[in-house]
Amino acid sequence: MNICIVGLGLLGGSFALGLKQQDQSYNFIGVDSNPNHANRALELEIVNEILPLEQAVVKADLTVLAVPVNALIAMLNPVLDLLPEQATLIDFGSTKELICRVVEKHPKRAQFVAVHPIAGTENSGPDAAFAGLLPQKIMIICDQEKSRPESVKLVESIFRQLDMRLSYMPADSHDLHLAYVSHLSHISSFALGATVLEKEKDEENIFNMAGSGFSSTVRLAKSSPDMWAPIFTQNSRNISAALDSYIRKLQEFKNMIDNQDEAASYELMKKTNEIRRILSGIDPK
Amino acid sequence: MNICIVGLGLLGGSFALGLKQQDQSYNFIGVDSNPNHANRALELEIVNEILPLEQAVVKADLTVLAVPVNALIAMLNPVLDLLPEQATLIDFGSTKELICRVVEKHPKRAQFVAVHPIAGTENSGPDAAFAGLLPQKIMIICDQEKSRPESVKLVESIFRQLDMRLSYMPADSHDLHLAYVSHLSHISSFALGATVLEKEKDEENIFNMAGSGFSSTVRLAKSSPDMWAPIFTQNSRNISAALDSYIRKLQEFKNMIDNQDEAASYELMKKTNEIRRILSGIDPK
Repeated sequence: MNICIVGLGLLGGSFALGLKQQDQSYNFIGVDSNPNHANRALELEIVNEILPLEQAVVKADLTVLAVPVNALIAMLNPVLDLLPEQATLIDFGSTKELICRVVEKHPKRAQFVAVHPIAGTENSGPDAAFAGLLPQKIMIICDQEKSRPESVKLVESIFRQLDMRLSYMPADSHDLHLAYVSHLSHISSFALGATVLEKEKDEENIFNMAGSGFSSTVRLAKSSPDMWAPIFTQNSRNISAALDSYIRKLQEFKNMIDNQDEAASYELMKKTNEIRRILSGIDPK
Repeated sequence: MNICIVGLGLLGGSFALGLKQQDQSYNFIGVDSNPNHANRALELEIVNEILPLEQAVVKADLTVLAVPVNALIAMLNPVLDLLPEQATLIDFGSTKELICRVVEKHPKRAQFVAVHPIAGTENSGPDAAFAGLLPQKIMIICDQEKSRPESVKLVESIFRQLDMRLSYMPADSHDLHLAYVSHLSHISSFALGATVLEKEKDEENIFNMAGSGFSSTVRLAKSSPDMWAPIFTQNSRNISAALDSYIRKLQEFKNMIDNQDEAASYELMKKTNEIRRILSGIDPK
């Protein structure tokens, strides 16, 4: 089976490496607009060959678009145009509503399955890819009733081969949940990093004091702006609402601190400690 | 040498365990107002014996106060009253300005050295303690000119034995820096956890989607309110200013997203990526 991967970064590369570990029979055809990434993916044996997009898609049984969501929007319809009749197309975009909307009227819509692996690190590019990224993580499949059953079955069987857990939801619910649980985390982390960088001109101070929890809270501020800026644009309505709630919560917390209302801030923290129990399956430490 | 540790939690316990690993000759006397913690610390061999505060302090060459900062304020002067003439007192509080102020006029002020180890986890209690917490971390020593040279030398030699890196600063600078690099991280994390818990009534959703960076950003929201509520009160002025800057930055970010100004949000993130280089010594991944 030929699998074409467009975008040989963290997600695309980890998908290929993870699948190779399970099954040697796949042939991976890589496509990347950055020739350095394409060469590096060959060197790292992420893919078996590199081809131009047009040649790769017509040769593949499954094409995976693992590029930033702005590139996805531009690419989805032209790639569907090229897609052979028996083939399936998926994308790994972190937004789903707009992506599903732009392909809505395409005659080959049913050959497309909109998915999103809930996995990532703050690193990017082929060197960031590793076989263990996707196994045991959630793969969300959106609006599966708009895809033909053979295509859904194919991708389900591949994700199961990768030992992923499948979850199904409408594209609009996906974007709403992700705004809170993923996109907001990235914004809070970037804003924290920016605030500290502006205040602490002496980098030595940041480095020395970062032991106190700063480095984990700010980890996501190392993430790629190329990936995240278009996500924030495409999911702006949900993210804006999430940010309003977050800013209101911070303001509420600040009022407690300003008023030295220790009982109230204690209560807010005690209630939020609940997150430990909820996350214990993920991060038991 | 007898070392009395008041508060057998994460920091007090890790200090004893770390030091024991370097040097078997210390005798650790434990004090804890919670008898379960005291017993557990004996079981875990964190301390060699448990005594009431009054008996422990008079027997010790060095007394370490490793309790929440509200308990510290209440305890500092009475413990200094008890302190033998040749002995030294230190505290591990996360705030330093008020702590130094309350002992300012005490006749034994010079026997007290105000320190703060820049290390911690989101866990608390004797079971959270481990020998590796303090080695290679920063120990900040505040207002050391107000302590007698023998006491400063004693604690410096112990911290070096623990392989800690020493840093010196005035108590007010300490509180200002920590507001940004530590206290703000905790508040942003608690506020994020509270926002998501309010929005996502279905815990399954949080658990399933937390892969996307949420768990590291929210890790500090598992921290102990008993420890943090009084820190926020004692450092409220600096924290309030830090929170104002943070909320302004979030609002600025939100405006970019609302206006779909991708170039501006890209630029903000690109600049903040600088944090990767600064933290690379701490968290090279």
